Amino acid sequence: MTILYDERVDGELPRVPKQQVLQALARDVPGLTVLHTEEDLRPYECDGLSAYRTTPMLVVLPEQLVQVQAILKVCHALGVPVVARGAGTGLSGGALPLEQGVLLVMARFNRILEVNPAQRYARVQPGVRNLAISQAAAPYGLYYAPDPSSQIACSIGGNVAENAGGVHCLKYGLTVHNLLKVEILTVEGEPLTLGADALDCPGFDLLALFTGSEGMLGIVTEVTVKLLPKPQVAKVLLAAFDSVEKAGAAVADIIAAGVIPGGLEMMDNLAIRAAEDFIHAGYPVDAEAILLCELDGVEADVHDDCERVENVLRAAGATELRLARDEAERTRFWAGRKNAFPAVGRISADYYCMDGTIPRRALPGVLRGIAELSAEYGLRVANVFHAGDGNMHPLILFDANVPGELERAEQVGGKILELCVAVGGSITGEHGVGREKINQMCAQFNSDELTCFHAIKAAFDPRRLLNPGKNIPTLHRCAEFGSMHIHHGQLPFPELERF
Amino acid sequence: MTILYDERVDGELPRVPKQQVLQALARDVPGLTVLHTEEDLRPYECDGLSAYRTTPMLVVLPEQLVQVQAILKVCHALGVPVVARGAGTGLSGGALPLEQGVLLVMARFNRILEVNPAQRYARVQPGVRNLAISQAAAPYGLYYAPDPSSQIACSIGGNVAENAGGVHCLKYGLTVHNLLKVEILTVEGEPLTLGADALDCPGFDLLALFTGSEGMLGIVTEVTVKLLPKPQVAKVLLAAFDSVEKAGAAVADIIAAGVIPGGLEMMDNLAIRAAEDFIHAGYPVDAEAILLCELDGVEADVHDDCERVENVLRAAGATELRLARDEAERTRFWAGRKNAFPAVGRISADYYCMDGTIPRRALPGVLRGIAELSAEYGLRVANVFHAGDGNMHPLILFDANVPGELERAEQVGGKILELCVAVGGSITGEHGVGREKINQMCAQFNSDELTCFHAIKAAFDPRRLLNPGKNIPTLHRCAEFGSMHIHHGQLPFPELERF
Repeated sequence: MTILYDERVDGELPRVPKQQVLQALARDVPGLTVLHTEEDLRPYECDGLSAYRTTPMLVVLPEQLVQVQAILKVCHALGVPVVARGAGTGLSGGALPLEQGVLLVMARFNRILEVNPAQRYARVQPGVRNLAISQAAAPYGLYYAPDPSSQIACSIGGNVAENAGGVHCLKYGLTVHNLLKVEILTVEGEPLTLGADALDCPGFDLLALFTGSEGMLGIVTEVTVKLLPKPQVAKVLLAAFDSVEKAGAAVADIIAAGVIPGGLEMMDNLAIRAAEDFIHAGYPVDAEAILLCELDGVEADVHDDCERVENVLRAAGATELRLARDEAERTRFWAGRKNAFPAVGRISADYYCMDGTIPRRALPGVLRGIAELSAEYGLRVANVFHAGDGNMHPLILFDANVPGELERAEQVGGKILELCVAVGGSITGEHGVGREKINQMCAQFNSDELTCFHAIKAAFDPRRLLNPGKNIPTLHRCAEFGSMHIHHGQLPFPELERF
Repeated sequence: MTILYDERVDGELPRVPKQQVLQALARDVPGLTVLHTEEDLRPYECDGLSAYRTTPMLVVLPEQLVQVQAILKVCHALGVPVVARGAGTGLSGGALPLEQGVLLVMARFNRILEVNPAQRYARVQPGVRNLAISQAAAPYGLYYAPDPSSQIACSIGGNVAENAGGVHCLKYGLTVHNLLKVEILTVEGEPLTLGADALDCPGFDLLALFTGSEGMLGIVTEVTVKLLPKPQVAKVLLAAFDSVEKAGAAVADIIAAGVIPGGLEMMDNLAIRAAEDFIHAGYPVDAEAILLCELDGVEADVHDDCERVENVLRAAGATELRLARDEAERTRFWAGRKNAFPAVGRISADYYCMDGTIPRRALPGVLRGIAELSAEYGLRVANVFHAGDGNMHPLILFDANVPGELERAEQVGGKILELCVAVGGSITGEHGVGREKINQMCAQFNSDELTCFHAIKAAFDPRRLLNPGKNIPTLHRCAEFGSMHIHHGQLPFPELERF
């Protein structure tokens, strides 16, 4: 394949005078809120990945579709890059602004347009919060399944852009599996409908292509999500283990036994202690690892699955097994897990949250590898993650005020991701690539694959004005970064071969 | 968006002398089986849609990946169009040859490379039959869920190309939902891996984009499919109704009651009688319509669902309700449905099988509309279909030997598809667009949407050598065909507004 635009290095983005953009917006977009002073722009200099900060040239806060359309037309005509932003909770810097670009904030599009219980969907604007959809559907016994930890704050437009996951995605799928239709505007401001009300749709699957494209192909203006009936019963099992490897092996055993839990999470000793100190969830603080396994569905089914999972966990060497006695205990078990990140924040000045996905069978080996990296670099690592789908979230603890610790933390993070790729996994599970992992994409994909991504990008946005410098690295960048690509099992890092 | 290649009308495809292609293949592809005589080419002149026939310039039957690669390189260098073909069971002419093109038959790639019960996947070559995968997985209690009616013959490569569905796709998803990874060759013969072993994968979702792309983006060379555990129990309910509208309404009621059946099929009186005469399934021949509803899962769950569905069906006005007493009766109930097409073939000289998908709630109105079209055009129409996902298969009965009947049948077919689009549905559920429905694509999509498809096609195949003239119509073709597009609910056919 050949790329249909010139590859530019990231520094060579167009730079249009701020005054010219302001004038064009004032002329063509009546009633638009535009922020342009240093003080007003400051709150938008980063998203949830605060390690990267850039002050944008301008921030625009449209309230109507025609305004978004006019903004895009202005930027397209002038050649100004556009970065879209929802709630700004993203953890990979996908909404990190560009100093020569406009930050397009979609937060004011926060209306739920329709909840249709008979056909089981909700039609919402992109700024609607993830949890607000489930709340609106609750009176009908329905909910929206994907549940990122940030679901109280994150918006559905951002969920689509990042293909967000969550605790329940093991059983119910990622964002892409829970969408029916997305309305977008192209870089030229043209409306386009992706997907359909029907189950199958002819033509190329643009809905799936767009989901997770991190603002590089268009701007989300409306989302139709599937709603599911709330499970009748949900039970949680807590299992303790005397080694992380055993807990990791148990995860694969559960799935292999034919059970798909509603959620299957793992925490190691460091995370357990931090969470217990903070939340008092009732976790066994001496365990090397715990698994939380939620089983949901109809009563009889859940009963059945519980028995099966208990047997598997016992056989896998669990030292303790506890079924939450009631809803209060179940909520407490989950509260510990859901607050594990802030809990770790209490025991360390800073932490760096990684996100990689590996085949379940590789869990024990990779956990061992992380422990070795932790010892080698002298930094503690807490493991809290969606074990069921192999989506790891190692938290690397460091103190930014100690010279060199941030750099060491980044090195450990990079090594962990390379380890994930080496065992057949990927460099992100649910946080996306954004700005943070753009170099690791050179490890994940070979140049043919990257070229294919660029060819598709060029089909939507040949001038590369939408969120440039994120998600898909230029071949030039990969060449500079060095040949990291692990192709067809040939590892450039012999030391990784033992995993 | 702008298309990145010149739009050519379909007649303007390159025409390279046959002798030149033969020589190049002989030189660059050692050991390749090439068919080139009129007699040898004849069996390949059509796929399952036998109404369209074209003798290809050449047929090639490679047995090794390097041969496929070399064939593509030869054709690319000479500018010869390539049409890929699996088992040739497709019903929309997706594998219809071109007289100036090479037909690339992938049938000899029929090895199952790996069945991995622990990680629940099978890795197979593209020519492996759909059913063969489930047979290979059966010893482990696993199976491959998508089950097109042609599953005994159709190949997985074709399933990927057409995003094939089947009876069980309501609950278990289409082909795209049951894939992990696909290896392809681009038009230039370059290998590309789409998807990953991990659940989520960074970059654009090329796997979903490719699935259902009908041979226009690349050639499938290897497929990794997900395997599911076989349900412990499966029960089938047969419900009879005194009107098709009532049966149609019952379908939406079942889903709205929170049950997702393993299969939910509908047949009308003409289909019931034809099937009963042929198979003796024990259907009530006086019923205007029957529903077959399969419920599968664990014992208690199925028991629960059966009760709920029985209540819904009674409330919806079912005149008779029968639960298959044993496995033999269950198999008999399904045999009638699965043989409905050949059964209709016994009562009519010819029939034209349509395939459209509509929102479930629209079923009663569309069934009424089909009955009116049937009366207006004087042609019988039998309805046999995947009711649960709104995927209709009206069979239009005609006799090709009666002058004008074929044309009338095509007119009725076209009207039915327009009706599907008008109620918010789509022109194909599972058979694909191929050659057959290329004009209806002009009704389904507006020019912006078609332009987007072409831009993506151009990213993969800028010279349009892969399966040209199928799936995505040129804007030129749509302009010639006439402006049929129904946009944002504005119907160009006022007579359809009543549905």
